[in-house]
Amino acid sequence: MQRILVTGASGFVGRHCLPLLVQRGFEVHAVTRKSPLVIPNIQWHFADLNHSAATTELLREIQPTHLLHLAWYTEAGAFAASPVNRGWHALSTALFRDFERVGGKRIVATGSCFEYGSSDAACDELRTPCRPTSIYGQAKLATASCLEELGSTTRLSTAWARLFYLYGPYASDRRMPGVVISSLIRNQAASCSDGNQWRDFLHIEDAASAVVSLVDSDITGAINVCSGSPVRIRDMAMSVARLLGCPDLLHLGAIPTRPDEPELIVGSALRLINELRWRPQYLLEAGLRQTIEFYKLQQLARAA
Amino acid sequence: MQRILVTGASGFVGRHCLPLLVQRGFEVHAVTRKSPLVIPNIQWHFADLNHSAATTELLREIQPTHLLHLAWYTEAGAFAASPVNRGWHALSTALFRDFERVGGKRIVATGSCFEYGSSDAACDELRTPCRPTSIYGQAKLATASCLEELGSTTRLSTAWARLFYLYGPYASDRRMPGVVISSLIRNQAASCSDGNQWRDFLHIEDAASAVVSLVDSDITGAINVCSGSPVRIRDMAMSVARLLGCPDLLHLGAIPTRPDEPELIVGSALRLINELRWRPQYLLEAGLRQTIEFYKLQQLARAA
Repeated sequence: MQRILVTGASGFVGRHCLPLLVQRGFEVHAVTRKSPLVIPNIQWHFADLNHSAATTELLREIQPTHLLHLAWYTEAGAFAASPVNRGWHALSTALFRDFERVGGKRIVATGSCFEYGSSDAACDELRTPCRPTSIYGQAKLATASCLEELGSTTRLSTAWARLFYLYGPYASDRRMPGVVISSLIRNQAASCSDGNQWRDFLHIEDAASAVVSLVDSDITGAINVCSGSPVRIRDMAMSVARLLGCPDLLHLGAIPTRPDEPELIVGSALRLINELRWRPQYLLEAGLRQTIEFYKLQQLARAA
Repeated sequence: MQRILVTGASGFVGRHCLPLLVQRGFEVHAVTRKSPLVIPNIQWHFADLNHSAATTELLREIQPTHLLHLAWYTEAGAFAASPVNRGWHALSTALFRDFERVGGKRIVATGSCFEYGSSDAACDELRTPCRPTSIYGQAKLATASCLEELGSTTRLSTAWARLFYLYGPYASDRRMPGVVISSLIRNQAASCSDGNQWRDFLHIEDAASAVVSLVDSDITGAINVCSGSPVRIRDMAMSVARLLGCPDLLHLGAIPTRPDEPELIVGSALRLINELRWRPQYLLEAGLRQTIEFYKLQQLARAA
């Protein structure tokens, strides 16, 4: 029996991974500090990963064969520069070692395109040097190194999914494209920068299917979870405004672009496509349309 | 003065490259066997490249510094297996040598994703072996080899653009997505295979900007001209049908999938993005919308 412990299970990535893990036949144990989600066949556990004794106890109790470690500090606007990232690095590596001690077989954890730093080049796992410029990127990269070290010195199989820009249902409305959608569906103006930066956007369900495939594979090392194709922020914002029929409410150039914004962040999807044999399900505009419907329903639910 | 000779200038790729070459300050000499196009600042020359003496004479007369060689046999349905490809190989390599003899400096010519063969893996210029399975792919690959050889044994600078699946205004209506668009705008049913294959589609204007950037650079060797992102044929067809408001006219699965159809043809856009610093302008559905408008205008013009 394959038994998986998922941390950060009620988060943006976690909630989309859970049903896919069930589909693949895993016995799924989900850890959260919040309320459980209504997803069939999930066993919920309440724990704060900051209390390492409680986490160790949970691992002993469940004896998982797999660990999908998604929990991290992700507060929009604050996460990049916070020293809290260092705490999550320490906590994560301790969790990995504990998992190995209770007989676990495979760990997949998630990193970020911020590990590469702002090179203005498309990022390839093998060829692009990692020179993170943020505390977040540094802490994720350090965690990746510890995980790889653990994989090479024990019988653990380990992989590290580098997530690029994700969007879709349950994404933060403080990030693109949620920030534009949430204003426009209220008929409020959305003030944006000129949006001339290029980013690699992937629908959350496509990202979750990649992460779950990775869990259920024996692929090791870092692997980008990305579309492979850059999209200009302004084009994405204009697509949203057009789909909602209110291009006049979109104010591009109304706020300045941050001076440290890289012109381009895009990944190579070669490992994803060739080794994991992953394929995306969403065209960008189809994904945006579905995301808009989700935000509208969410707004109705809040108003009710 | 940079003076360029463009073969296949009135073709699908050529016509989109011409204005971009003018914009970059090239004196543009366009070769065609057909009628000239109405594009400002282009000098047209009528020649059949099969008559090598006429071609040589043209090169002596114009003394181009650059050659963009696009002409090839491209008849939809017939091009892949035709022995005519071997003639185009011979003709192309003779043209390259003639161009070098009249003092030309740089050649860019176009190949195809068919040079890689059907590996079902994403194609990277450096890492993917080329094992073409069609005469077309073999002839293009052989031409690339001759061009590279010429680049390494003379002072010529040479590059080879591997074009993936291109769509947009003036694309053939016998290929995707033109074949679906042209039926649906006439309110006729479009019969397709199940469309479960994945392909790398790029808007023709994005491809032309890549090719023209390549001409105006000193990058050498093979470089993919592709989006980097796979799209399922059925998803593209459904996008077209949705944009036209007639999903019921799209008959997916009505015709069998050819048994030799590879499941996946997609490129790595790393060289394009990192070395050429190219960026795409079109989101797929925005490009499809523009293409549909073009087909509608073309239909009106034919009816008039």
